[in-house]
Amino acid sequence: MNAPPKAATTPIRVAVIGYGYWGPNLVRNFSGRDDCVVTAVCDLDEAARATAGRFYPAVRIMEDVGELLAADDVDAVAIATPVSSHFSLAQQVIQSGRHVLIEKPMTTTSQEARELIDLAEDAGVVLMVDHTFLYTGAVRKMRSLLDEGEIGTPYYFDSERISLGLLQQDINVVWDLAPHDLSILDYLFDERPTSLQAVGYRHVGSGREEMATLNLHYASGLHAQVRVSWLSPVKVRRTMLGGSRRMIVYDDVEPSEKVKVYDKGVVLDLDGEDVTPQKPIYRAGDVSIPTLDRAEALQVETAHFLECIRDGSRPLSGGPEGLAVVELLEAADRSLAQNGDFVSL
Amino acid sequence: MNAPPKAATTPIRVAVIGYGYWGPNLVRNFSGRDDCVVTAVCDLDEAARATAGRFYPAVRIMEDVGELLAADDVDAVAIATPVSSHFSLAQQVIQSGRHVLIEKPMTTTSQEARELIDLAEDAGVVLMVDHTFLYTGAVRKMRSLLDEGEIGTPYYFDSERISLGLLQQDINVVWDLAPHDLSILDYLFDERPTSLQAVGYRHVGSGREEMATLNLHYASGLHAQVRVSWLSPVKVRRTMLGGSRRMIVYDDVEPSEKVKVYDKGVVLDLDGEDVTPQKPIYRAGDVSIPTLDRAEALQVETAHFLECIRDGSRPLSGGPEGLAVVELLEAADRSLAQNGDFVSL
Amino acid sequence: MNAPPKAATTPIRVAVIGYGYWGPNLVRNFSGRDDCVVTAVCDLDEAARATAGRFYPAVRIMEDVGELLAADDVDAVAIATPVSSHFSLAQQVIQSGRHVLIEKPMTTTSQEARELIDLAEDAGVVLMVDHTFLYTGAVRKMRSLLDEGEIGTPYYFDSERISLGLLQQDINVVWDLAPHDLSILDYLFDERPTSLQAVGYRHVGSGREEMATLNLHYASGLHAQVRVSWLSPVKVRRTMLGGSRRMIVYDDVEPSEKVKVYDKGVVLDLDGEDVTPQKPIYRAGDVSIPTLDRAEALQVETAHFLECIRDGSRPLSGGPEGLAVVELLEAADRSLAQNGDFVSL
Amino acid sequence: MNAPPKAATTPIRVAVIGYGYWGPNLVRNFSGRDDCVVTAVCDLDEAARATAGRFYPAVRIMEDVGELLAADDVDAVAIATPVSSHFSLAQQVIQSGRHVLIEKPMTTTSQEARELIDLAEDAGVVLMVDHTFLYTGAVRKMRSLLDEGEIGTPYYFDSERISLGLLQQDINVVWDLAPHDLSILDYLFDERPTSLQAVGYRHVGSGREEMATLNLHYASGLHAQVRVSWLSPVKVRRTMLGGSRRMIVYDDVEPSEKVKVYDKGVVLDLDGEDVTPQKPIYRAGDVSIPTLDRAEALQVETAHFLECIRDGSRPLSGGPEGLAVVELLEAADRSLAQNGDFVSL
Repeated sequence: MNAPPKAATTPIRVAVIGYGYWGPNLVRNFSGRDDCVVTAVCDLDEAARATAGRFYPAVRIMEDVGELLAADDVDAVAIATPVSSHFSLAQQVIQSGRHVLIEKPMTTTSQEARELIDLAEDAGVVLMVDHTFLYTGAVRKMRSLLDEGEIGTPYYFDSERISLGLLQQDINVVWDLAPHDLSILDYLFDERPTSLQAVGYRHVGSGREEMATLNLHYASGLHAQVRVSWLSPVKVRRTMLGGSRRMIVYDDVEPSEKVKVYDKGVVLDLDGEDVTPQKPIYRAGDVSIPTLDRAEALQVETAHFLECIRDGSRPLSGGPEGLAVVELLEAADRSLAQNGDFVSL
Repeated sequence: MNAPPKAATTPIRVAVIGYGYWGPNLVRNFSGRDDCVVTAVCDLDEAARATAGRFYPAVRIMEDVGELLAADDVDAVAIATPVSSHFSLAQQVIQSGRHVLIEKPMTTTSQEARELIDLAEDAGVVLMVDHTFLYTGAVRKMRSLLDEGEIGTPYYFDSERISLGLLQQDINVVWDLAPHDLSILDYLFDERPTSLQAVGYRHVGSGREEMATLNLHYASGLHAQVRVSWLSPVKVRRTMLGGSRRMIVYDDVEPSEKVKVYDKGVVLDLDGEDVTPQKPIYRAGDVSIPTLDRAEALQVETAHFLECIRDGSRPLSGGPEGLAVVELLEAADRSLAQNGDFVSL
Repeated sequence: MNAPPKAATTPIRVAVIGYGYWGPNLVRNFSGRDDCVVTAVCDLDEAARATAGRFYPAVRIMEDVGELLAADDVDAVAIATPVSSHFSLAQQVIQSGRHVLIEKPMTTTSQEARELIDLAEDAGVVLMVDHTFLYTGAVRKMRSLLDEGEIGTPYYFDSERISLGLLQQDINVVWDLAPHDLSILDYLFDERPTSLQAVGYRHVGSGREEMATLNLHYASGLHAQVRVSWLSPVKVRRTMLGGSRRMIVYDDVEPSEKVKVYDKGVVLDLDGEDVTPQKPIYRAGDVSIPTLDRAEALQVETAHFLECIRDGSRPLSGGPEGLAVVELLEAADRSLAQNGDFVSL
Repeated sequence: MNAPPKAATTPIRVAVIGYGYWGPNLVRNFSGRDDCVVTAVCDLDEAARATAGRFYPAVRIMEDVGELLAADDVDAVAIATPVSSHFSLAQQVIQSGRHVLIEKPMTTTSQEARELIDLAEDAGVVLMVDHTFLYTGAVRKMRSLLDEGEIGTPYYFDSERISLGLLQQDINVVWDLAPHDLSILDYLFDERPTSLQAVGYRHVGSGREEMATLNLHYASGLHAQVRVSWLSPVKVRRTMLGGSRRMIVYDDVEPSEKVKVYDKGVVLDLDGEDVTPQKPIYRAGDVSIPTLDRAEALQVETAHFLECIRDGSRPLSGGPEGLAVVELLEAADRSLAQNGDFVSL
């Protein structure tokens, strides 16, 4: 690394590669902090560079990644480009000694993900993947409810992430949208799935799956379903988490009351009571809507990235977590190619 | 048949077997008409009989089906008992020469369904299955929008029918809830699926699947997904129907605005325009919420049953349609037993 | 009274006058009980009588109230006719010695209401007014939350009750819809308003106010607003109750989650803290959705009416409560006639 | 004016006074354009200046308005400070020869508003008031539906704008929130109200009305109601517009389907038909949800401001429109002081 990690008193110098859909959010969040400074933005597209320049006249705007890598005022780089370029860019960034934050999914193959993990280990830099949802108040609340035993034994995780577009050019809808849910699953539960199955469909001629359903099985009996679509007329972002004690509905489209905890369930046997599978009890108690930390996820995440750089701690969504998601995406592609057969993991 | 079919001027005499969850709705609807009269209600449960007697003091209430079959004032019988008893009861009703309306699903096996179809053919009586949703304004509107070409080429049918309970004693959740969607599919589209796949889960110890997802493939490229659950904290009854021209969201929980038609879609090629899979057009035009016939479905359905009896026409949901649904349910059970493999139909 | 009140072991014999919009609900609820029996239904309209006869062939159906009053098998009468006939019918019923349940609003003038109270007192019969909402789980929960101090000092009660139609022939929209809210107000709070103001509008030529807003002031500082309309394109039934500790939103159109309790508020001064009107604290804690008694209100209410008859207790919504609502309606009419001036009560 | 209005080819140089709640939105929108450049931001608060400096390192950040007025690179100034400072600041800006965009409400008195109009007239500069909602796709669609006769004769405009906080230090809730609705009213209808009435309440000790209801009467029979509150547990932004032909519900909290047009109504007389006030027809046809221009309102508005500067055209929300709103706010205060009496306009 040209420039060594800075002390807390010296702002970390951040560059962002890719100023398309997500890049502006990264630049905005890094710009708003006083423990870092955005020194460069790089994009191949002229219009994107012009926009970046108008909003951030003090930032160097460039087309060439080589120029960025040669700069002496860059400590860390965030990569927000199409997936197919992640590996090559991250490799160069790491090898130049910078810390790196990669947009999800981490890479297009698990082999590439493993290589990046090794490279970052060798270089002693922070490698983090932008699994944004782990940094939301909603997902953190779900995790703490699970930890506190409020949910009881988890039965199922059911997630729907559908809307119209935006079709991606280099990946199918599973690689585009499912990383959100797969990273949430990895964060919420201490176990990883043992098998996975995926069915997908192509309708409009994009040449890639535009709708798909994933089923994941876990050794504990937990199962998860993830549905993703680019062809829904309405936007739905709804996750349900059912357990033996309580059930959660997390609706991310809802502006304020995102997480509802239902004191509901079915009881089929109860000591000393006349309850049987033929005469179950349906519990339907109060619903509670807990207050959530409303900080923007990306603000929490950028703070975490900078903190990992400063104190050398492991990111919540580091290389191994990015790899875990890519492995599931690969398994999904294998199942899609095999007509929806279950694939062991 | 002890009593021959009545002329339109003579009210048809109807009996109902089973006065549990659905039976009271049948009795109420037949009672409210002036072209039929409810003469008898039969139930094994004493409390059910007492309730029926309080509400309908003029109706004969009985425990024994034999007594009902021996009566000389019964032209038609509606059967609203657990599924496992449908075949035996319907067989007796048909063989005694009465018309019969059977609660869904028609029988527990397709073999039984075929036998009933043959018996009714021989006896010259009407055999109808209570596929209630075909008689709703919402489903009829969807059919007419398809017929008129408003939807274009159908891409997908996606249905979610979930809530907490009520667990059934003799069938799994697929047999309990999916008949609604499978009968709607059969009604909406002129083709039948060529293969089907089902994954299901048991969590609370009922010994049967309490949650399941079905995928159905059609030769035209259409695919359908049906999700059913007894373990959801919230009640969802939502069907989405996507096509090349428009997309429909049918929300049956919504009290008044049940069907929304979205003038939305993705266009990947357009003559003479610079539109490609890499640069698609996302159309997002107006949404319309058509007025629906708000008559109670069961009112329309009972009228249709009586009309078929009077003029000998074939029911919209007759034996063959009931059989088609049972065949799909059997296929779903086979797929469930085979770890979710696709099953040819 | 021809027939004395029956012991609990003898079913109370009930007649219903008026089988239009609400009457069928009364007949259905009384019919479903085993501590009473519906012996007669009376209506001037031939079609209404025919419908009643079809559903309840064992009940005597009649046109003439005189016939009903002369019957020897009627202990209590429920009146569900247009408001303008309430006084005359109730007077006859009471004078014939029967208990009476009157649809809201009780009468067209407070003078009539007072006369009925006196008549019932003299005759020793139960006089009850059908303020249905007092018997809902939602309103009872609001009352108990107030009683337990959960709301703190009540600030405001704000209710909106609007939809399209049904225009009434003999009363304006205030008399049609506001009795619900005014009776809820009377039930929830121990104080009565000291002044009232109403503004109303006529648009479609019905000759009566079709939209109106009432403001009620209370000595404690509490204020209430009630908005009613026959001219809204959407149905809204929403009541908000704000207090110093918590705030309630009661949405009666919502099928299951009707009452939400918000742990929200504004704090302008706090001992030892730097909080001022210029720097208020906005509390935004959890939201809870309490489980409600889901029994049909009219079922609870008919049980209460019969219980008052049997044990002589005072109804929750007796003559004085009916009178209180009519007095407020009269005051609203006075304010409407005076261009919305506040009227002292 | 130090610097004359620029040709379209030269970017207009804009300064913003006030970088609190709204100021950052102004700076962001002006910064994103290529026909203007933000040269200065002025705020009394040190923390606000620090934030502005981090996001816009190329912009001069200053505390002193005098410094801004003395600058030679400022053609236009946007004022986003507390209302009480609007007049004084705008006066200085205009007198220094710059164009001015003032946050709503324009001033604290109509006298001040009139003075500013005269000053701007004399100075030949553009005076515009930030009535943001006039620049939304939703309000523009409502206007075009009215213009095209789709609504028929307008009956009522009913608006609710409530949430928790943010209490303002120098104005009551009417002055804070009602300007939105009063400016929309002024924009939608060609007539102005003839009288106005307001009732308001103070509960938490802020010393100003925290909840209020305004009623406005128009000569044509149209009436409007505007309800505003800082004390609601839920955020509601709902406007209903009822007419003889159709009715509109505009829900600004809804993320995508903001405007719904209901083909609903009540018909009390119809040539040659048996329709009377006693037997009205309730029309309930389709609902349509028109596509709206989804551009950010402030983006449309800033473009309009710059366009008015360049070509000298009158702003849609100029001085006279700002004055009209302030006059209504003054009338509301008079009515509040007179216990809710109607005040002539």
